Amino acid sequence: MPTQLPGGYNGKILRVNLSNGSISTEATDELFCRKYLGGAGFALYFLWKELPQGVDPLGPDNKLIFALGPVTGVPLPGSGRNCIGAKSPLTGGIAKSEVGEFWGAELKRAGYDAIVVEGKAEKPVYLWIHDGEVSIRDASLLWGRNTKETQQTIRTELGDNRIRVAVIGPGAENLVRYACIMNGLFDAAGRGGLGAVMGSKNLKAIAVRGHKAPTVFERERVKEFRDWLLANMQTTPMLRGFNKYGTGAAMGGFEATGNLPVRNFRGGLFSETGKISAVTIRDTIRVGMETCFGCPVRCKKAVKVEEPYPVDPAYGGPEYETLAVLGSNCGIDDLKAIAKGNELCNAYSLDTISTGAVIAFAMECFENGLLSIKDTDGIELRFGNYEAMLKMIELIARRQGIGDLLAEGTARAAQRIGQRATELAMQVKGLEAGMHEPRLKPGLGLGFMVNPHGADHCCNMHDTMYVTEQDLKGLRPLGILEPLPADDISPRKVALFRLLQLKEVMFDCLVICKFMSYTHEQVAGIVAAVTGWDTGVMEQLRVAERVLTMARLFNIREGFTAADDTLPPRFFQPKTDGVLADKPLDPAKLETAKSYYYTLMGWDARTGIPTPEKLEELGITGL
Amino acid sequence: MPTQLPGGYNGKILRVNLSNGSISTEATDELFCRKYLGGAGFALYFLWKELPQGVDPLGPDNKLIFALGPVTGVPLPGSGRNCIGAKSPLTGGIAKSEVGEFWGAELKRAGYDAIVVEGKAEKPVYLWIHDGEVSIRDASLLWGRNTKETQQTIRTELGDNRIRVAVIGPGAENLVRYACIMNGLFDAAGRGGLGAVMGSKNLKAIAVRGHKAPTVFERERVKEFRDWLLANMQTTPMLRGFNKYGTGAAMGGFEATGNLPVRNFRGGLFSETGKISAVTIRDTIRVGMETCFGCPVRCKKAVKVEEPYPVDPAYGGPEYETLAVLGSNCGIDDLKAIAKGNELCNAYSLDTISTGAVIAFAMECFENGLLSIKDTDGIELRFGNYEAMLKMIELIARRQGIGDLLAEGTARAAQRIGQRATELAMQVKGLEAGMHEPRLKPGLGLGFMVNPHGADHCCNMHDTMYVTEQDLKGLRPLGILEPLPADDISPRKVALFRLLQLKEVMFDCLVICKFMSYTHEQVAGIVAAVTGWDTGVMEQLRVAERVLTMARLFNIREGFTAADDTLPPRFFQPKTDGVLADKPLDPAKLETAKSYYYTLMGWDARTGIPTPEKLEELGITGL
Repeated sequence: MPTQLPGGYNGKILRVNLSNGSISTEATDELFCRKYLGGAGFALYFLWKELPQGVDPLGPDNKLIFALGPVTGVPLPGSGRNCIGAKSPLTGGIAKSEVGEFWGAELKRAGYDAIVVEGKAEKPVYLWIHDGEVSIRDASLLWGRNTKETQQTIRTELGDNRIRVAVIGPGAENLVRYACIMNGLFDAAGRGGLGAVMGSKNLKAIAVRGHKAPTVFERERVKEFRDWLLANMQTTPMLRGFNKYGTGAAMGGFEATGNLPVRNFRGGLFSETGKISAVTIRDTIRVGMETCFGCPVRCKKAVKVEEPYPVDPAYGGPEYETLAVLGSNCGIDDLKAIAKGNELCNAYSLDTISTGAVIAFAMECFENGLLSIKDTDGIELRFGNYEAMLKMIELIARRQGIGDLLAEGTARAAQRIGQRATELAMQVKGLEAGMHEPRLKPGLGLGFMVNPHGADHCCNMHDTMYVTEQDLKGLRPLGILEPLPADDISPRKVALFRLLQLKEVMFDCLVICKFMSYTHEQVAGIVAAVTGWDTGVMEQLRVAERVLTMARLFNIREGFTAADDTLPPRFFQPKTDGVLADKPLDPAKLETAKSYYYTLMGWDARTGIPTPEKLEELGITGL
Repeated sequence: MPTQLPGGYNGKILRVNLSNGSISTEATDELFCRKYLGGAGFALYFLWKELPQGVDPLGPDNKLIFALGPVTGVPLPGSGRNCIGAKSPLTGGIAKSEVGEFWGAELKRAGYDAIVVEGKAEKPVYLWIHDGEVSIRDASLLWGRNTKETQQTIRTELGDNRIRVAVIGPGAENLVRYACIMNGLFDAAGRGGLGAVMGSKNLKAIAVRGHKAPTVFERERVKEFRDWLLANMQTTPMLRGFNKYGTGAAMGGFEATGNLPVRNFRGGLFSETGKISAVTIRDTIRVGMETCFGCPVRCKKAVKVEEPYPVDPAYGGPEYETLAVLGSNCGIDDLKAIAKGNELCNAYSLDTISTGAVIAFAMECFENGLLSIKDTDGIELRFGNYEAMLKMIELIARRQGIGDLLAEGTARAAQRIGQRATELAMQVKGLEAGMHEPRLKPGLGLGFMVNPHGADHCCNMHDTMYVTEQDLKGLRPLGILEPLPADDISPRKVALFRLLQLKEVMFDCLVICKFMSYTHEQVAGIVAAVTGWDTGVMEQLRVAERVLTMARLFNIREGFTAADDTLPPRFFQPKTDGVLADKPLDPAKLETAKSYYYTLMGWDARTGIPTPEKLEELGITGL
């Protein structure tokens, strides 16, 4: 391999140990970049290689990785993202999450490709990275503050309003197991409790400013991808209407197909869906659309509410997942309350999905008598009670009253409440399910089962469920020539699922926004254009296979087995109403599909353990 | 899928039943073309779907498929080829072989994509295909004639000297089990006894003339591939020096590395290698270079000898395989005798590799006392006796004397001679090994083991053995980033072998010459340019996987098991001399590699039987 660094990389990893204050940089070489690519690949590399087995996720020995990909900061739609990874305090396995805004691009311009944060600061600190200069600064006065105050104070303190900040709020400080890390005020690395890890290290924020634009091998070709996306933005299913509404415009359609979770995934009908959709938001409380670095889509809402409670547009507005989880999934149709809940989660750095899911779970427990009015300190924690929902967010962030129990996440809370409650916990491996319905699309169910982070819809976004004539457009080059119905879970669907799951990992390594409707082939073309490598779709899938297998190994090292690749029992029961009322998943079919997925991955068909041969083939040092 | 026919196809299959004289055509659709592509894919489709289990390869129920690919006849270097397939009278399993010249391009211009020949003619016939008109014509007067006379007589009879002829000679008429089919006089569909199948059907020839140039979707892009090949012809390892020498210039180098088979693969040293190389041919007996349709490489020698026996340049000249098998592998250093042997094989339509290999085997039997001078009718059948070698070819073609035994092929002959002889039979599944040394390159050994046709080097031509820095150029896009030594047979090598084996099948479906050094990505690009499909390397590999799995199924239906995926014992013994004198293959390592290969193919790791899930995934109707 040529030793010159490929386009898109700075070739430098920043390592910061908060226990002893040491700051160092490590050089990477081209082979490393090509084997792991970036983002999730870099995160997994460090976590798999450096974390000892059994480390306390909230102890000083856990490591928190912030990783960019080769396209981060490159002028291409969707390139404003970075990956964050650690051992998860929620699942005990791998956590990784990607997040947008401008922070990743700024870190690229500051000269790094990744940050490895180790140890634990004695007192609250924040990190200040400025064009290759790094310092650890006191954050005692920031501790306890919400994200907006923190960002503003840091910018003022450092005297630069263009500083970008990855930051946590009180929820993360209080080690809520699903606390997130915010890039700015409305972009969350949401899933798996990465914010709690940051909080456990007494690290309040990472402030970044840089001025060196990333190198790009073939700028003209990158521009062609940008132009393609602009030209196709309004016609590809994934992006259609996004710059008009953002996510959440299709909630009515979701209800009609059965995809919309209602009342903790119990039902399918929610008569007030129209009240909480992104179309209604546009017509009522929306005050603008925001964006991430380099992205013309501008899919991010900002909403403003004056009464009955103020909602600050600085915190953006609710995405589909938030609308569904705080809305229909809690039986709530009050849009202002949902907007307020979203603001609170962003201010406290709580993952809206897990937060809403644990509240919906608690509501069902309450209605079923598994939680009493005494447990809730007098709150009528029923589906549809939006004031209770908002109260719960406050209690969780502060770990007060029942909030202390719910801050542990659905799985742990259910275990403490009792056996009947565990059947209502809509989680896999401890991670609360995204707002999509496996009973509609068993391919998604398979994804919820086998994804290493748990029931994370971000590992499953690319059409795993349907293959329509239109989808075939991007799939034919992979050899998928014929449509597959949504409810199919045959070996053909499993093979397709694997290809699409690997595509998600490709996106996570690049790092690029999953709403960008680039095909597998285009993704490989983007890597080639940015880096200058003679790469192709086969190599990019191979990278993804390597990274996904490392995530698998990480979980196995922590004690996970094939038995953890399962779904909550509710998905094997019919919905109480709606089009899926007579369509539970068939557990035997899902188990068969799981086994075939293992086989296709080169993992043991029964245990799901990667074979030594596969590890050798992928160049991974084994268990 | 759009129903308009893609570029490169006529969309018509010609079906001829020689028993009842029926001639019909069948239309194909785009999905069929895309799933099976052409060439080997079409051949396997018809053989797997239509041949009943246990059919007599030399009986009327066997079928003989002549299949073109989408690039056949397209103006692209290497596109002058077609595939021929049938159940093999040599192995009892699948036989398929590709062959150059102009016949395939002519059939494309005559309006067909494939011919399915069924039944058996009562008397010798030939087929005449002229721009969509097809007739079965009497060939009684042609029977017994050699290929040159047959071709000339047909051209005279039909009054067109530009007619192209696929033809058999007396060897095939006499059902020598490794008789081949010649396109013209020096291009053979050599392996597996396809000529004997043609002979068994009393089909002497297929004469073709056509005038309709094939459609091409994107002619300019096809031209770019042509230009690339021309520009790189002198620098890519596979083609370097080919238009100067053809194959066989590197025989000295082959001896030095140990790749050259000497005396039935027994030894490694052959002091007279220089006398029989293509360089010497150029300097002595060569009178010209010939070519196939559309190919600027012109790699095919024509040689002329006056005494001690005339060698007719109309029959071309010996390729590397022939030089080695009739030369060093028989201990023969007389270039004129080798040239004569080559001419005889082409005149009688005998596969030079199997012919030379069975003679080398008989020589070793003779020297070891397993065949006596009585058995050979007085011939001193010793290594180095070139007159004996020439005599054997005559006897085999006519099935006279010991020729009748040797016409059965090495495996059957050895079984009749006895146990000790079987250990000297250098064959797999009944097919004699190509002239390359598995002890040098265990990846080749694995190929000899698992290729459905037996020890066919044509399934293993693309650098399976070494991966050097230079090879990486075409392999990096597949994710192969680091060199692998020749003697490596780790899971990484097995995975690479599979990718390269599938590439061979891609070439065989297209159909394109394997000396063309197109990468996987370029092959997919060629398919896209010719057909207009939005295809990519993943789809093309998937087609190859489908076709290879169908070949596997065909063999399983005929009773083959994993035990047939083995090597002759000699490869597990050291060579008697040369650089590999202390380097036998390790049988345990090869078995481990074989099992991992099965796994990667989605076949049972122990039995090698494709799993039902894999068949469903590939869309193949199963066993």
